Amino acid sequence: MFTVEVKVGLKKGVSDPEGANTHKSLELLGFKEVSSVRFLKVYRMTIDAPDRDSAMERVEEMCRKLLTNPVIHTHEIVFL
Amino acid sequence: MFTVEVKVGLKKGVSDPEGANTHKSLELLGFKEVSSVRFLKVYRMTIDAPDRDSAMERVEEMCRKLLTNPVIHTHEIVFL
Repeated sequence: MFTVEVKVGLKKGVSDPEGANTHKSLELLGFKEVSSVRFLKVYRMTIDAPDRDSAMERVEEMCRKLLTNPVIHTHEIVFL
Repeated sequence: MFTVEVKVGLKKGVSDPEGANTHKSLELLGFKEVSSVRFLKVYRMTIDAPDRDSAMERVEEMCRKLLTNPVIHTHEIVFL
C-alpha cells in the first residue's frame, strides 16, 4: 500500500488565473512581500501495488489517461 | 526570499467531490488498485521575509485571511 501525491501544475507560459487572482487578493490585503503565486492541484491517493516501481508506473499511466493534459500541464509524483 | 507551499485540504467528514469523482473515473478506466483519492489545492508562492519564522507567521496570516476556511479546511505549510 502506497500513498502517492500527484501534483499537477501549469507549464510556464500557460496562464494561471487562480494563481494570479490569489496574488492580487493577497496584495490588496497588504501582503506586498509576495512576489509570485502559482496554483497547483494535488491528488493524494492510496494505491495497492507489489512495489514502488510498479506503483510509479501505474500512476504515470493515470496521469496520461486522466489526470493531466500534456499540452498545458506539468506533473510531479511524490511518494509519502 | 522563500518558496513556500500552502497545501489546503478538506477536513475529514467534509465531502470531497473532486476526489470522489477522480476515484470513480480511475476505477472506470480500470485502475482498481486505487482505494482512495483526496483532492488538495496548493498555492506555491515566493515571499520576501527576513527569516523563516517571520515568513511562516505571514503565511499563517494569509491562510487565516484568504486562503483557507477553518470550518472545512486543513492546511499545511511547507518550505521548499
